[in-house]
Amino acid sequence: MPPISFKIEKKIPNTLGRAGVVTTPHGIINTPAFVTVGTKATVKALTMEQVKDLGAQVILANTYHLYLEPGDELVCDSGGLGKFMNWNGPTMTDSGGFQVFSLGEAFGKNITKIAKGEQLVVNNGRSFPDARDTADDPSLLITKKLATIDEDGVTFKSYRDGSTHRFTPERSMEIQHNLGADSMVAFDECTSPIAPYEYQKEAMDRTHRWAQRSLDAHIKNKIASAKQGLYGVVQGGRYQNLREESARVLSGMNFDGYCIGGSFTKEDMDAAVSWVCSILPEEKPRHLLGIGEPSDLFGGVENGIDTFDCVAPTRIGRNGAFYTIDGRKNIFNSQFVRDFTPLEVRCDCYTCKSYTRAYIAHLFRSTEMLGATLLSIHNLYFIIHLVDRMRVAIINDSFLTLKADFLKQYYR
Amino acid sequence: MPPISFKIEKKIPNTLGRAGVVTTPHGIINTPAFVTVGTKATVKALTMEQVKDLGAQVILANTYHLYLEPGDELVCDSGGLGKFMNWNGPTMTDSGGFQVFSLGEAFGKNITKIAKGEQLVVNNGRSFPDARDTADDPSLLITKKLATIDEDGVTFKSYRDGSTHRFTPERSMEIQHNLGADSMVAFDECTSPIAPYEYQKEAMDRTHRWAQRSLDAHIKNKIASAKQGLYGVVQGGRYQNLREESARVLSGMNFDGYCIGGSFTKEDMDAAVSWVCSILPEEKPRHLLGIGEPSDLFGGVENGIDTFDCVAPTRIGRNGAFYTIDGRKNIFNSQFVRDFTPLEVRCDCYTCKSYTRAYIAHLFRSTEMLGATLLSIHNLYFIIHLVDRMRVAIINDSFLTLKADFLKQYYR
Repeated sequence: MPPISFKIEKKIPNTLGRAGVVTTPHGIINTPAFVTVGTKATVKALTMEQVKDLGAQVILANTYHLYLEPGDELVCDSGGLGKFMNWNGPTMTDSGGFQVFSLGEAFGKNITKIAKGEQLVVNNGRSFPDARDTADDPSLLITKKLATIDEDGVTFKSYRDGSTHRFTPERSMEIQHNLGADSMVAFDECTSPIAPYEYQKEAMDRTHRWAQRSLDAHIKNKIASAKQGLYGVVQGGRYQNLREESARVLSGMNFDGYCIGGSFTKEDMDAAVSWVCSILPEEKPRHLLGIGEPSDLFGGVENGIDTFDCVAPTRIGRNGAFYTIDGRKNIFNSQFVRDFTPLEVRCDCYTCKSYTRAYIAHLFRSTEMLGATLLSIHNLYFIIHLVDRMRVAIINDSFLTLKADFLKQYYR
Repeated sequence: MPPISFKIEKKIPNTLGRAGVVTTPHGIINTPAFVTVGTKATVKALTMEQVKDLGAQVILANTYHLYLEPGDELVCDSGGLGKFMNWNGPTMTDSGGFQVFSLGEAFGKNITKIAKGEQLVVNNGRSFPDARDTADDPSLLITKKLATIDEDGVTFKSYRDGSTHRFTPERSMEIQHNLGADSMVAFDECTSPIAPYEYQKEAMDRTHRWAQRSLDAHIKNKIASAKQGLYGVVQGGRYQNLREESARVLSGMNFDGYCIGGSFTKEDMDAAVSWVCSILPEEKPRHLLGIGEPSDLFGGVENGIDTFDCVAPTRIGRNGAFYTIDGRKNIFNSQFVRDFTPLEVRCDCYTCKSYTRAYIAHLFRSTEMLGATLLSIHNLYFIIHLVDRMRVAIINDSFLTLKADFLKQYYR
């Protein structure tokens, strides 16, 4: 039996959307589901007990970051990613391919994987130092390009000490085998949304060759491949024919699941997801990489996505932003200084059951670390439960009503 | 019935030490007890659920800090200190008198309230930014003296914005009434351990006059004094005759309990505590302000102290230090990088039950906030449970054995 399996429970009529269950060696994931990001084997500012209590089902850590610090071999020796960070449930690692983008073509340019979407939340001078640890932090965009790509792989310099490293599909598999997550991702190149068609095509073709090499290297390690699943990554940028070609080519390889990688424009993300999900095998789980905005989550689910990951809930939380059903707000706003109500009156998260907006505003204005913890708890709870509600709505045949009602209030 | 009462359960034979119970409007405190410090109405890096789970009985917040941020009136409007920070148990506020010392005579000089003891833990460049928020942080010791004392009170400049403020005994009571803690502290002057005898005498006499004014102002507010107790502060520096005089004078005033304020030398702290506790009324609880080193806790308990507060467990934790029965260690030490055992094998704290030294070393080396949280949990648990063990030992007639065994192993 393969380490990762998927069962569809219910579909959204006349769409590609579905509710299902992903089964992993460390438990099930009820989908659609939001995957909590723990970049360096820690969900920033939270204990794993808090992460579990707020409703997280699965955690994704970043291969690139863990390779550099503390090293994949150390994580392996500790018993693997889950044991290292004290998380008993399902885990995922990514491929390192996004860093190929953020340290390479995007480096030094003010672009993100979503061309016309919201820009990254910029450090407002009051945030916490760990924000700088993510490779796509704007504060890093001041030095020269740190990665170069060739047919065989990627050579890059560490953001930590400038030392030179190399990732190939085979090396990415080896590192992810050491990390030991339930789901791994084939090594890919995440292109810039502003790259020309010719480059998107070239990078996509290379990503397909890397996908086959990743799969071969994965299967070759019989012990690891018996307990870890591998997802392929569909690329192709904004171009329908490339996206469809990528979905077709990868569907022909026997992956345990499929990721859809950036880049998109905000406007055509739903379309791009639907092009791809119309082609990918229905019986395999589909993960949309690095997407977490509420409108994108609804669009992704409607168009066939089962899981999502995104750093937004914790990153914006560390900067003082929080989600409400009436849209995103910022705790530094003066209206909250004497507001003795919870962040969200009808929210059942630990933060909302225990603390007021005035208290959290005080913590942020005093640069107290607890502020980041409390907003991270609320924001993760909000997004995870929003996707959980989508699942319930699919099963109850009310997804489109939930979508319309939520988005009308959130973006009004 | 007074808001604060105390009952002795058992004494350490041939010493001044005792185990007892302090009863407050928000519950009891089994003594001896370590009081957890929540300077700005937050125990740094911890939720109140974590603080409760690790065994804290009572939290002390700093009047000076809360007066400046978010303001005592806001705390009052939120329902008082406990409700503001989501702590249902007993609370204390200090007088602001220590800041008179640290912003006044000690300002710009490399001295602390313990003359020959350990110096403050100095920021090693990897610690967290909230360390700067404490008025006695070394990074602040670069500008000029910020407080001046006269017979009526103290004028000081805010460390935040340079604005001028004034504390008098009456103002301190008014602020502490707004904060609404179960126990308050009379306004006092904490002198420098290197101040000459004449100044110690002068300051002590003034502190006695301020003690009476504090008591008068407290009693005058009938609503507040019905639900808040007031502790007087014994001063007198290193001089036996002054300490004894201070204890006698304050014993003549009807306080609900007594604090012993700095300054001491490390060598004569036990003696100074015993001079004072020989005189103070036996039936009133005694609190030793700002002391938390294991040897000092044993010495304090043996010489009649019921409660202690100190920022050390959380402050040293944020800097990577942690307590073990074999002494204090630092997680940055290279020996911990691949150490897959808990901080302390026989420790039952959340951190030790869930994470390894290698994982916590990774968090600190990656400047991940969770590291500060995990060491703060362990260190508070360690010190709180150490004092709890002293209580059990007193009741079991084995205090001196516990003291000898613990100190032999801890300081070997």
